[in-house]
Amino acid sequence: MTEAVSRPTLEAVAARAGVSRATVSRVVNGGDGVREPLVERVRRAVEELGYVPNQAARSLVTRRHDAVAVVIAEPETRVFADPFFALQLRGISKELTAHDSQLVLLLTEGPEDYARVGRYLAGGHVDGALAFSLHLDDPLPGLIRGAGVPTVFGGRPGWGDGPRGDGPTVYVDSDNRGGARDAVRHLVGLGRTRVAHITGPLDQTSAVDRLDGFRDVMVDADPRLIVEGDFTPAGGERAMRVLLDRCPEVDAVFAANDLSAAGALRVLRERGRRVPEDVAVVGFDDMLPVAEGADPPLTTVRQDIEEMGRLMARLLLRGLDRRGRDEDADPGTGKGLGGAPSSVVLPTTLIRRASA
Amino acid sequence: MTEAVSRPTLEAVAARAGVSRATVSRVVNGGDGVREPLVERVRRAVEELGYVPNQAARSLVTRRHDAVAVVIAEPETRVFADPFFALQLRGISKELTAHDSQLVLLLTEGPEDYARVGRYLAGGHVDGALAFSLHLDDPLPGLIRGAGVPTVFGGRPGWGDGPRGDGPTVYVDSDNRGGARDAVRHLVGLGRTRVAHITGPLDQTSAVDRLDGFRDVMVDADPRLIVEGDFTPAGGERAMRVLLDRCPEVDAVFAANDLSAAGALRVLRERGRRVPEDVAVVGFDDMLPVAEGADPPLTTVRQDIEEMGRLMARLLLRGLDRRGRDEDADPGTGKGLGGAPSSVVLPTTLIRRASA
Repeated sequence: MTEAVSRPTLEAVAARAGVSRATVSRVVNGGDGVREPLVERVRRAVEELGYVPNQAARSLVTRRHDAVAVVIAEPETRVFADPFFALQLRGISKELTAHDSQLVLLLTEGPEDYARVGRYLAGGHVDGALAFSLHLDDPLPGLIRGAGVPTVFGGRPGWGDGPRGDGPTVYVDSDNRGGARDAVRHLVGLGRTRVAHITGPLDQTSAVDRLDGFRDVMVDADPRLIVEGDFTPAGGERAMRVLLDRCPEVDAVFAANDLSAAGALRVLRERGRRVPEDVAVVGFDDMLPVAEGADPPLTTVRQDIEEMGRLMARLLLRGLDRRGRDEDADPGTGKGLGGAPSSVVLPTTLIRRASA
Repeated sequence: MTEAVSRPTLEAVAARAGVSRATVSRVVNGGDGVREPLVERVRRAVEELGYVPNQAARSLVTRRHDAVAVVIAEPETRVFADPFFALQLRGISKELTAHDSQLVLLLTEGPEDYARVGRYLAGGHVDGALAFSLHLDDPLPGLIRGAGVPTVFGGRPGWGDGPRGDGPTVYVDSDNRGGARDAVRHLVGLGRTRVAHITGPLDQTSAVDRLDGFRDVMVDADPRLIVEGDFTPAGGERAMRVLLDRCPEVDAVFAANDLSAAGALRVLRERGRRVPEDVAVVGFDDMLPVAEGADPPLTTVRQDIEEMGRLMARLLLRGLDRRGRDEDADPGTGKGLGGAPSSVVLPTTLIRRASA
């Protein structure tokens, strides 16, 4: 037996409660101006019938969806391969859940799918967006701006934090430059003189900031001691091979993240260099399974990735609440999160283990 | 300088193209009955102004969102810890992207968040849903049914595949029972006589089916040789300890997935049992980094997890297209995917490596 199961309608609720459609609509959308006994009757009817308001229609009135989109400017394969993203999403998920807002993760295969992401964001499905792992020349920020949804960025966007036509850019970041300085100062403090740097992808501000921190300490660094990596173990391996070929006397390496440090450690072992005796190694992130599980366990710069995610979500939700109070809610104006703090930069900590 | 950036309106497009609002609306929504030269003029105006239709409003007319929700009945921590989900999502993502449909992953902290997921699904934000890793007594299927969106399940749902009020249940699964039989027959063929089974969580049909396959071959299995695991490495370790304590003479183990087999291998090594000489071990999944990286590399039952994801997405999209053609599109009726095949069960293959 096959029969159509249909959802209860607004009309059914109105009939059950003995009130008009307009009254039901006002109660369901949290509007004022309905007497308390009527509100009670409508609520009871909604409950008894299991009525779920059609949010496509409802959102035209309330303009709130209780949902936040998360966009990561990486293909889904990297999102699942790099534990950094899982940690950031964990923080975001906890914070959104605590506010009963749905985390909507928009996955892509690559930048050629960003136009579709922009359409979804513009389509009235979410209250705001959290975007991270942006690259310079990334088309995403433009699409997000075009979509007109309030957005908080993870990591300082490449265009700086000055005022723009659509209000200040709101972001959460770690003190990448300060953390890098601590790492390199630690290596210098160990008496190392040929300190190399395996960078991250230099189209991301986090990688550029860590390189700047390295240069702050190693002012006269031999340019051959700086090799570009890409935040992956394979990139760390490649860079370490280049370093050993160019400069066999290298005695310390600051890798821009733990994953590339793990790759570097593998190559050093393969080439018979002892860590830390011959070459001291420091990473960045302190992602536990990677850093603690490394051989030897990795000295690294800790950033609280989960907390960064939590803060991104908190800044967005606060901004949305403020907006809802201060002005006519109009998610189409692209006004950003006026009044909210424009950025938060979290401190980092050097964690000493066996590798340096 | 801060100025409001506002998105171009339908009116602006109409003015630019020199046509009525209604004509623009019909063209934008792909409707017929507009003469080709007018269609061209509207399209040009849309392009020049960078007009993005408001989908909340638009979807009330077209009832298509070009987006599909994915719901995994596990907390986000497990979604990112178990590579099974990444593989299934990879297949889904590729197939949806090929059809320019946005993958919308709805993450939760646990079952207490499912009501919110149900609201999002009911809210007119997606054309359909893909749900997997369901448990028996899972509230999700009920909420999905209540939301009235066409859905394809990954893994045979616990309620069987008979006809229901809302049409046949559509799912994609592997031949879990047949694969388990192959694994156990292989162990018996090696001359092993005390073959144990570490099960998956028995509130999931995949785990129950693999246990049934084990029993098909080991008809008179000593019940002490069956220990419940939970598809995680830690669960495999616990179960292996119980098995060795209960039955020190155990000479073979069929673990319900590769992750629990990896846990079992660790305990066998710790207790000084040689694999495969003393105890032969077979897993299930053939997740490459896990199975190939195991010590010794794992003999296992391969299921094509990525292909399962791809097929789920394909069945859903096909059903949506058929629906769009055959009947008045009405995502609220919960009629499922009438006319689409009701299920696909993929074959498995035994992959021999060193562990058995």
